Amino acid sequence: MNIITISREFGSGGRELGKRLADHLGYDYYDSEIIAAVAKNSGMDADYIRTLGDDGWQQYPITFRSTLGGTLYTQSNKVQLLLEQKRVIEGIAALGKDCIIVGRNADVLLKKYQPFNIFVCAETETKLKRSLERAPEGEQLTEKQLRRKLKKIDKARAQTRALLSSSPWGQRKEYHLTVNTTGWEIKKMVPAVADFAMAWFGRME
Amino acid sequence: MNIITISREFGSGGRELGKRLADHLGYDYYDSEIIAAVAKNSGMDADYIRTLGDDGWQQYPITFRSTLGGTLYTQSNKVQLLLEQKRVIEGIAALGKDCIIVGRNADVLLKKYQPFNIFVCAETETKLKRSLERAPEGEQLTEKQLRRKLKKIDKARAQTRALLSSSPWGQRKEYHLTVNTTGWEIKKMVPAVADFAMAWFGRME
Repeated sequence: MNIITISREFGSGGRELGKRLADHLGYDYYDSEIIAAVAKNSGMDADYIRTLGDDGWQQYPITFRSTLGGTLYTQSNKVQLLLEQKRVIEGIAALGKDCIIVGRNADVLLKKYQPFNIFVCAETETKLKRSLERAPEGEQLTEKQLRRKLKKIDKARAQTRALLSSSPWGQRKEYHLTVNTTGWEIKKMVPAVADFAMAWFGRME
Repeated sequence: MNIITISREFGSGGRELGKRLADHLGYDYYDSEIIAAVAKNSGMDADYIRTLGDDGWQQYPITFRSTLGGTLYTQSNKVQLLLEQKRVIEGIAALGKDCIIVGRNADVLLKKYQPFNIFVCAETETKLKRSLERAPEGEQLTEKQLRRKLKKIDKARAQTRALLSSSPWGQRKEYHLTVNTTGWEIKKMVPAVADFAMAWFGRME
């Protein structure tokens, strides 16, 4: 079984790369599927969980102040969410099928399966442009607000990872490949990224 | 003309990757050739310059204390060396031939040519093992000394780069691709790295 994990800066196109890579390789693909599964398991509403997702952890584990009102009840939902995500990701791996998992610290959670771990980054201007093009229905952020959102979400991702692992988020040594999408049409890099992952999985041959 | 630059942590195998990539692509290859050329231009002895090379800049530009005796004369040789390296690298680009340049901040110096810029890293244990296997004739360092040497050389590279550019050494956004050689037999990743570079140069087609 080959597992490819993709960690990414918000707005860098990691999700698109993951989906295209899965299509290219014929692998199963997971990201929002995970959230839905978590929702199902935890009995929480998928949209509500999406608001928690990677992006709702700014203050965690530094403090228990919640981004959703600061009640310990909400906080406990967050802990429950991470725990369910962990179970779901382990469940996906247990299926034994080749797959690509975007986000959710799958590289850390599935370490024993020796996944090929990719980190996707881009220059801030690239991420701003991408985020504007893909803004959720009705989201109207100023550029300043959007810049703040980018930082906030990546900080949240770094902190969630810090909770699960001593391996720092985004540090080059923690991934097999770090890809900068600035200047790329992402679909054009897909075959090369796929070649790289296949060379890794086949390196002992 | 396609230019591929390789920056690397000491002991990560960046030089081997560069040489193999050049063989694979049929590109010209430069690293020690640059030193020799500099030596020729500057009238300094190649071995002497090698001792200055990337690796002799620990204190520069932080202080003028020289690693070779602290005379301004020696220091002026270092400035001269960087200047000559710059001229030589610009001269290589001016040849207009596809090439790979390892080290010497070619990615910064040749920015206007839009090179494909690779950074090569590895886990410390990997670099220690590699450095031991490839230690210069007669070098007998303890592991502790070798660990110190790794840090010292990379610090020197970061400082030399800081002298030439505001783009931080090793920062993921500053390169197109960051490759971790840990766990690889480097020759096995060469075709994928080549594909990646070719996809970059061909991305507008």
